[in-house]
Amino acid sequence: MKYGHFDDKNKEYVITRPDTPLPWINYLGYDDFFGIISNTGGGYCFYRDARLRRLTRYRYNNVPIDNNGRYLYIKDGDTVWNPTWKPMKVALDEYECRHGLGYSKIKGVKNGLVVTVNFFIPLGSTNEIWTVNIKNKMNVKKSIRLWSFIEWCLWDAYDDMTNFQRNLSIGEVEVEDQAIFHITGYRERRNHYAYFACSREISGFDTSRDEFVGIHNGLEAPQAVIEGKCHNSIAHGWSPIGVHQIDVELDPGQEENLFFILGYEENDPDKKFTSQNKLNKEKYYKIICYFKKDNAVEKSYRELKEYWAKLLANYQVFTGDVIVNRMVNIWNQYQCLVTFNMSRSASMYESGIGRGIGFRDSNQDISGFVHMIPKRARQRILDLASTQLCDGTCFHQYQSLTKKGNAEIGSGFNDDPLWLILSTTAYLKETGDFSILDEQVGYANSEDSKATLMDHLEISIQYTISNLGPHGLPLIGHADWNDCMNLNCFSTNPDESFQLTGDVNKGNIAESVMIAGLFCKACWEMIDLYNQLGEDKKIKDITTKAESMYQAIYDYGWDGEWFLRAYDASGNKIGSKENKEGKIFATSQAWCILGKAGLKNGYAEKALKSVKKYLANSNGIILQQPAYHTYFINLGEISSYPPGYKENAGIFTHNNTWIQIAETMVGHGDQAMEYYKNICPPTKEEQIEIYRSEPYVYGQMTAGPDAPTPGEGKNSWLTGTAAWSFVAISQYILGIQPDYKGLRINPCIPKNWEKFTVHRTFRGDKYIIDVINRNAISKGIKQIKVDGKSIDGNLVPCFGDEKEHFVQVIMGE
Amino acid sequence: MKYGHFDDKNKEYVITRPDTPLPWINYLGYDDFFGIISNTGGGYCFYRDARLRRLTRYRYNNVPIDNNGRYLYIKDGDTVWNPTWKPMKVALDEYECRHGLGYSKIKGVKNGLVVTVNFFIPLGSTNEIWTVNIKNKMNVKKSIRLWSFIEWCLWDAYDDMTNFQRNLSIGEVEVEDQAIFHITGYRERRNHYAYFACSREISGFDTSRDEFVGIHNGLEAPQAVIEGKCHNSIAHGWSPIGVHQIDVELDPGQEENLFFILGYEENDPDKKFTSQNKLNKEKYYKIICYFKKDNAVEKSYRELKEYWAKLLANYQVFTGDVIVNRMVNIWNQYQCLVTFNMSRSASMYESGIGRGIGFRDSNQDISGFVHMIPKRARQRILDLASTQLCDGTCFHQYQSLTKKGNAEIGSGFNDDPLWLILSTTAYLKETGDFSILDEQVGYANSEDSKATLMDHLEISIQYTISNLGPHGLPLIGHADWNDCMNLNCFSTNPDESFQLTGDVNKGNIAESVMIAGLFCKACWEMIDLYNQLGEDKKIKDITTKAESMYQAIYDYGWDGEWFLRAYDASGNKIGSKENKEGKIFATSQAWCILGKAGLKNGYAEKALKSVKKYLANSNGIILQQPAYHTYFINLGEISSYPPGYKENAGIFTHNNTWIQIAETMVGHGDQAMEYYKNICPPTKEEQIEIYRSEPYVYGQMTAGPDAPTPGEGKNSWLTGTAAWSFVAISQYILGIQPDYKGLRINPCIPKNWEKFTVHRTFRGDKYIIDVINRNAISKGIKQIKVDGKSIDGNLVPCFGDEKEHFVQVIMGE
Repeated sequence: MKYGHFDDKNKEYVITRPDTPLPWINYLGYDDFFGIISNTGGGYCFYRDARLRRLTRYRYNNVPIDNNGRYLYIKDGDTVWNPTWKPMKVALDEYECRHGLGYSKIKGVKNGLVVTVNFFIPLGSTNEIWTVNIKNKMNVKKSIRLWSFIEWCLWDAYDDMTNFQRNLSIGEVEVEDQAIFHITGYRERRNHYAYFACSREISGFDTSRDEFVGIHNGLEAPQAVIEGKCHNSIAHGWSPIGVHQIDVELDPGQEENLFFILGYEENDPDKKFTSQNKLNKEKYYKIICYFKKDNAVEKSYRELKEYWAKLLANYQVFTGDVIVNRMVNIWNQYQCLVTFNMSRSASMYESGIGRGIGFRDSNQDISGFVHMIPKRARQRILDLASTQLCDGTCFHQYQSLTKKGNAEIGSGFNDDPLWLILSTTAYLKETGDFSILDEQVGYANSEDSKATLMDHLEISIQYTISNLGPHGLPLIGHADWNDCMNLNCFSTNPDESFQLTGDVNKGNIAESVMIAGLFCKACWEMIDLYNQLGEDKKIKDITTKAESMYQAIYDYGWDGEWFLRAYDASGNKIGSKENKEGKIFATSQAWCILGKAGLKNGYAEKALKSVKKYLANSNGIILQQPAYHTYFINLGEISSYPPGYKENAGIFTHNNTWIQIAETMVGHGDQAMEYYKNICPPTKEEQIEIYRSEPYVYGQMTAGPDAPTPGEGKNSWLTGTAAWSFVAISQYILGIQPDYKGLRINPCIPKNWEKFTVHRTFRGDKYIIDVINRNAISKGIKQIKVDGKSIDGNLVPCFGDEKEHFVQVIMGE
Repeated sequence: MKYGHFDDKNKEYVITRPDTPLPWINYLGYDDFFGIISNTGGGYCFYRDARLRRLTRYRYNNVPIDNNGRYLYIKDGDTVWNPTWKPMKVALDEYECRHGLGYSKIKGVKNGLVVTVNFFIPLGSTNEIWTVNIKNKMNVKKSIRLWSFIEWCLWDAYDDMTNFQRNLSIGEVEVEDQAIFHITGYRERRNHYAYFACSREISGFDTSRDEFVGIHNGLEAPQAVIEGKCHNSIAHGWSPIGVHQIDVELDPGQEENLFFILGYEENDPDKKFTSQNKLNKEKYYKIICYFKKDNAVEKSYRELKEYWAKLLANYQVFTGDVIVNRMVNIWNQYQCLVTFNMSRSASMYESGIGRGIGFRDSNQDISGFVHMIPKRARQRILDLASTQLCDGTCFHQYQSLTKKGNAEIGSGFNDDPLWLILSTTAYLKETGDFSILDEQVGYANSEDSKATLMDHLEISIQYTISNLGPHGLPLIGHADWNDCMNLNCFSTNPDESFQLTGDVNKGNIAESVMIAGLFCKACWEMIDLYNQLGEDKKIKDITTKAESMYQAIYDYGWDGEWFLRAYDASGNKIGSKENKEGKIFATSQAWCILGKAGLKNGYAEKALKSVKKYLANSNGIILQQPAYHTYFINLGEISSYPPGYKENAGIFTHNNTWIQIAETMVGHGDQAMEYYKNICPPTKEEQIEIYRSEPYVYGQMTAGPDAPTPGEGKNSWLTGTAAWSFVAISQYILGIQPDYKGLRINPCIPKNWEKFTVHRTFRGDKYIIDVINRNAISKGIKQIKVDGKSIDGNLVPCFGDEKEHFVQVIMGE
């Protein structure tokens, strides 16, 4: 079955059947206002925080799945249908959904009527706009009646789906002309309201779900639609909705354009009302006036497209491999920005009410998007640092609206602090902006602390050093990446958290080899940074620390053929040939090598051979093998999953990318590319009935060979894979690495690649880099010419002139 | 429109149209296993705790509302339909739902096929049984295919609807013969499993929702049903369901019986598996064997009905008023038992994941059910007491599975402790079981404390005394009944709790006149109790305390025509003629009078006159008037509701019952009955299109005259109104009051009632009480004869012989 195809020219994925194996979604919004939208119009929008400022209501895991959203009902004669197919699912004569960068354009054709809806959120706005084009392709006149539909969420998405004894009494709206205002809670503490307006005269409206949909009807058959007209209802309590009724007459061949606009505004507390409890709508008036004039809607859509094109232009590659080009130039970068904005909060699999911004997650995300939006990376780094405590540990999550650490989860995930070093140095290398290091960022548990970001980095290193276990390896705390190996928790009660049960600070001795590798990587980053700053004494000190960590890894973290994963709380090995299950883990192989362990003594090569032998699969590298078949109280959540799923021997794409990087570090370009391709979404189009998820973005996990559904893609969109995959391909395989003083060129490619070109904007300069590989090698540079002149080494300097510079790279011994 | 009628003989409410204005629900279960079921089969079941042990999945506030549940699909020729009407909503030739006591019997008739399903939970079991009777009324043979349907919840109902990134990978089932086992999580820490089995051979099954329903289909059109056959699917991850496919051939006139059984079992941790990860099903085998033999299903249904009849027989009244008889003898007592079991956890408006057992709520519930199940009241009182802290304050809520106080909400709702006194003395008076006072119950914050229940009662009194404000009235803390007047919180941020914001212990001076009245009531209860115990010194001491409280009420709690409601944190009056809005509150009038304030000085009469003048309405007594039209930061949640809804001038039925009692205390039998009738559910049948809720049970609130939908009933079933209404009618209007040494007879009835009879079982003795009112008075007793002999006073003694005793009561001056 084929559900769609890529349109690389337009940077779109084109879905040609609405009945995709799962809802295939896209994200709208870029600044403070966001939407999630499926190929059939499902989803919702929110202001900044998917939990606390949800505008429209969505029901996850509903039956049918994805049955809430932004809908238009079209009545053309006796036929009523939706251009998005759902929710009525009336068979369409033609259907197309184009998921583009920040917009989704869905077209439905029925009985000669073509309705195209383009959903997007203009840059810098707090509006979701739906432009609607209706075209009569028949040679008779058509009289169309059209209804819009959204259901309001009462702002706090969690409260909205649990606190009915209150919520069913508080819903309030106002209606004025073509605008429906959602003002639930505005009478009390809320200073914000939402609106849903239309550019045209309306012939009716509804705001009460009971009136429009009917108590016993579903969205597949709303009562008012069946009756043919709205009730002009005002919702009081219960569930407020927004419905406009619009009548359109179309001569043969005629088309009409209109738009709907959904928006969020905040008023000053002292300007909330014009009279008692009457909403002050001034800000809305401004917005609607603006968008109604001078083709402002079209203009804002054009600006959005141009902006995205500009963002992506910072890194464009031209290779003979269409999939590599497509992912690097469009979808992987796009996904990186989405993960920047969403962290792990809102997708089809993240309900938007749980996790907020993850410390570990978001620090990793930064290296995927820093080259596009360095300013926002800067702010994110500072926000993240401000949730670090003064002993170096970090709040594991924070809420995006409040930027406060989540006290329920707390801190003590011992890899967390180290990721801050990686994100900060990624920012520094991309921008050269050392001023960030002097920014004052207090510690979350010390109101008056005046630490600098540099202090945060140093305390992060110190945190690991202060928390070493009996083998000199880092203590794991609650867990390291990615929360599922809970070596100090020992939970037997299913009502407890795997991560938070018990006192993790009480006599815990469980150690992580993964953190050891990550620590070495962080040390190298700090050494490079100190080099820039001329801090020789600190270099010496940290080198000593790194050396002891290497020694600990070699002495106690090596298992003969691969690196161990950890020691449990009783000092037993995990990820060892001595284990019956969970003998070998990808994670620790990756991080030891990324931390440069085993590069000289052959361990790295050996470990990667073992990865290939025991973990590699045509769908990617399995997280660990053999799968755990029963629950191990000393391991925790990892062993709770059915074999082959998730952390229990699933193919976690995230650490596939680390292994790709590791392969480039030992010069295996073909192997790196093979691993890259094995998890690359477009390659899944061939097996889409099995894979099921979107073929244009990474998912968190593909079911492993132990699972009953091997190859099934799960948890698409919000994954650290996005950033790391972009790092792997752009910096390690294609080998264009931002560095403090310029771009370092160090490709590691398949031997049969004869050449490729990268356009890279770096600190304002535009580099056009041609890499030529006449000798069919994977790695090694013979010569680099910049603007026609040979340079020594592989560091292409910064010019700072914002001009084009031509770089010719000849690979060779 | 008429949706149904009462069948008092069968103790049923008979719904005759499926499209009720809201889902009209019923409760199944009595001991440890419960279900909530609507008149169209919607709802779910759970083991003990609606949040932590949810068996089947339900989606609250869905579109259409109530579209999940227990369904049968019937394929008869080309027609497929549901006997419960939903979810397919195929028009039925006949429909009837009989909500009975602990069971719901739903019948659908289509094309001469009659399908009757009776849903119930046998006493003492952890099973929900559906008996199905299928009858062919046509004169041709019918070949029927039938599918059952339920959707499994992954146990923790909150996690189930939020944690998809995990949950969509963990679903697991086993299928064996006619049984589908839900074993998600069983591989790890869960020692419990669920099953859904059928008494007959099946011709197919499904356990994967995607396979049976289809990804894009709804329950109104499951894919497998449309195709005509199951896929025999095994769910792996995603959403497991339970579907049996059964074929039945029916000759003309023939009928067949079968049953489905849903169940929950726990295994010993060391007997979880028979082989690796293979569920040990022994307990299931026992159950299915038991129910398949000897008409055990029918027997268990009969036992259930008999048991309920026996429970209700403890109090039966025979008056000329059919509605009084119906409510007292059937529905009010039934609702009292449901609120005992559910507290405020699971209804159409309580999602089952929030509040657990409320301290204030459940103590009040006790007086409604103690006469039926005193043993369980005893345990509940001890459970509640164990969540009191050693200074006397109490956890406001606890989780029913763990019996641990909810630390998030904490304590400091200052009326809470006093309710424990009322529940305990209600228990003592009903049972005479003073041993409960000596039970050792620790304080929740002191592991080794060895307090007795009596210590808890005394610390409760002391708590009020230790927390008096500037006027000598009790400090309110976070809030008193019912949480919505938040005088110490001052929340401006909509993301905060109204109740919990700020530090309630820091300089708070807000005082509650309602708690003052409740305190006096509690003092009287303690005085009566001490009297029984001969504790004269303590009587003196507590009398002094009560007297100072009366003085405080008269000096600072009286507003001239009524009792004030409170003083806010700035010392300003609330519920005073000085206020523009919220001038008068029902709550404080009720509790001052229940505490016997103003009975001698005329304040009580005056206050009740004001209640009638300012608050009474044909739909009941409004909580306060005038409604608050804007948010008052010094008042909190009460002013957050739109006028006329909920605490902001809604008709809160709960305190209607207190006013009824107060009216009897001043001898107004007609007024008490008028108020009783105004909120009495069966009276709502006449205006059901407006009222919308179930006419057989109380709701929490009816929209007040300030609301845009006055008369609309909201939040049915789980309300303290159930218990208090039963206390009001049975003890104060009909006047049969359990007392330490016997039954006190003190009716206060409408003058035109000439007589009534009460059958009351009290400590095993069976009293048949005839009350005769020849002089058309409301109150006063001339003579009481017990077994033919006159007694002095109005206390009918206990005999302890478990025999019938005839009591003749002649009312008169």
